[in-house]
Amino acid sequence: MTSKSPNSQPLGEFDLIARYLAPLATSKAARGLRDDVAVLGLAGLGGDLVLNVDAIVAGVHFFADDPPHVIAERVLRINLSDLAAKGAEPLGYLLTLALSPDQDEAWIADFTEGLRRNQDTMGWSLLGGDTVRTSGPLTISVTAIGQAETGTVPMRGGAQPGDHIWVSGTIGDAALGLAVCQGKGPGLPTSLDDFVVERFRQPEPRLKLGQALVGTGMVSASADVSDGLIADLGHIAKASGLCARIDGTLVPTSLAGGTAIAADPVWFERMITGGDDYELLLTTPPSAASQFEQIASDCGISLTKIGLMEQGAGVFVTNRQGNPLALETAGYRHF
Amino acid sequence: MTSKSPNSQPLGEFDLIARYLAPLATSKAARGLRDDVAVLGLAGLGGDLVLNVDAIVAGVHFFADDPPHVIAERVLRINLSDLAAKGAEPLGYLLTLALSPDQDEAWIADFTEGLRRNQDTMGWSLLGGDTVRTSGPLTISVTAIGQAETGTVPMRGGAQPGDHIWVSGTIGDAALGLAVCQGKGPGLPTSLDDFVVERFRQPEPRLKLGQALVGTGMVSASADVSDGLIADLGHIAKASGLCARIDGTLVPTSLAGGTAIAADPVWFERMITGGDDYELLLTTPPSAASQFEQIASDCGISLTKIGLMEQGAGVFVTNRQGNPLALETAGYRHF
Repeated sequence: MTSKSPNSQPLGEFDLIARYLAPLATSKAARGLRDDVAVLGLAGLGGDLVLNVDAIVAGVHFFADDPPHVIAERVLRINLSDLAAKGAEPLGYLLTLALSPDQDEAWIADFTEGLRRNQDTMGWSLLGGDTVRTSGPLTISVTAIGQAETGTVPMRGGAQPGDHIWVSGTIGDAALGLAVCQGKGPGLPTSLDDFVVERFRQPEPRLKLGQALVGTGMVSASADVSDGLIADLGHIAKASGLCARIDGTLVPTSLAGGTAIAADPVWFERMITGGDDYELLLTTPPSAASQFEQIASDCGISLTKIGLMEQGAGVFVTNRQGNPLALETAGYRHF
Repeated sequence: MTSKSPNSQPLGEFDLIARYLAPLATSKAARGLRDDVAVLGLAGLGGDLVLNVDAIVAGVHFFADDPPHVIAERVLRINLSDLAAKGAEPLGYLLTLALSPDQDEAWIADFTEGLRRNQDTMGWSLLGGDTVRTSGPLTISVTAIGQAETGTVPMRGGAQPGDHIWVSGTIGDAALGLAVCQGKGPGLPTSLDDFVVERFRQPEPRLKLGQALVGTGMVSASADVSDGLIADLGHIAKASGLCARIDGTLVPTSLAGGTAIAADPVWFERMITGGDDYELLLTTPPSAASQFEQIASDCGISLTKIGLMEQGAGVFVTNRQGNPLALETAGYRHF
């Protein structure tokens, strides 16, 4: 169960879920709504179904004038990223479109072209859905269905003291890309601006890497970085009853990210608290290290050890100079 | 795949689905988007997963000031009705809430109380979801997951010439209830007004009856009456490549419905074309008749044979006097 909004509201996300929705999640499959996915074991299946819902609203989670095929690709990729973090193989998706008066036939045609491209690349397909009209902003909800071997899907809360913390790819490009789209970027060269905008708009779900890493049986906890590195690591730490300690000098950044931080160190904090990276965030026993590095190398995707899980609570991080960082924000704002 | 809206729009429902979405539904499970549900057969499961999505928008599919627990019950019941028509047993649901600024904590508390009541009655539970904020009207999308024996789930398009057409319960109460809510009712006594409003607000998914009837293996085609009797029967007729012929004198009506028609015969047409009945609509070979009547009797729900499937195309219906009825509307308006 996830919840997202840019605005502060009287009823917070965690209150809404913990107080009102979690008591309804009586099935073991729901994991008490304390995970990113539901995991439905069916007798005789020989596998678990992995279910995830993500909804996006125009003007909140994407720009209303983004090209429709980009919006389509993005909402599917966001859902696939959750499956990737759980090591699941995508089976198909159901789509709810609440169309505003702005969506004409040309919009629909380009949007469905984006769905088609995603299907061709990712090897899954549309299973069903519903289409309604709204006087409000375009709202898109996707239910993604994946499959995993029985009992293999990691929880958020399985990390142990001493476990290593790993992230795939680079962190913070999406935060930079969003800033560029909002005209508040760090003034990077055009080619780097283009790179971070693309990273924001079209995140890459790490499906093969996630399946291979989870397939080792060594992943103790996992999530994808959607709310921001610090926030998502905070979810893992809280669910595991532990503290997460990150060495900021180890957090992997792209050339664009490194350039931004070099120009103004404040970008480092924005990049580790900004959302939408959609990279894998995993914890493992130390014994998994060499195997994990080999798998990442085979997949051609970087995987970086950035810290350790310890007794305690919270997330502690040092800055690029190795000094403790007092974070003003704890990731993407929930309502 | 379904699509609904009260407004006429340039791109029609069937064009949108047929032209843009059906080509994406490459999985056999999607049934080419020509059914109300997707049916996902998984190797080794010994059963089929039945998947359905229904979305509702405030001011379109319900009144924004309806009590929140009534809205919650309604959206779950609408989804359960699709499972009922396919003979599926509900497993759980995923919920997307796009909350407008009008939904405060008291609203959430009452809404989730409605979800809880439904879960207690129907024996299913929340599996996961997503919550977002919108500046537009409250929008709720539910993905319902059910289970059925492998290969038993009826299609829309399986009716054969000579098959009987059956409906459960009574037809047209919801159309009357909606009219009453809009101040356009037929001037029924208060107790009957209350009855039809309740029938509109809180449809009764015919789960046990649907499971028992489909369990006979004799249902050749099925749907629930959501768009209106004539429109949904039209879907079955078109998908089956046949014509449906209904005897209007046999269409089951409640005391309220009969009273309305007696006061003004125009109500009959409104009742068979109005939506939201959420009764079962089934076709069977004639040999199933006595078995079906016994099952309905055992379930304590009326089941009425209203006509026959024949060679041809379209839906033909007589009025309460037995004369051919020229329908002005073909059911609930799609966009």
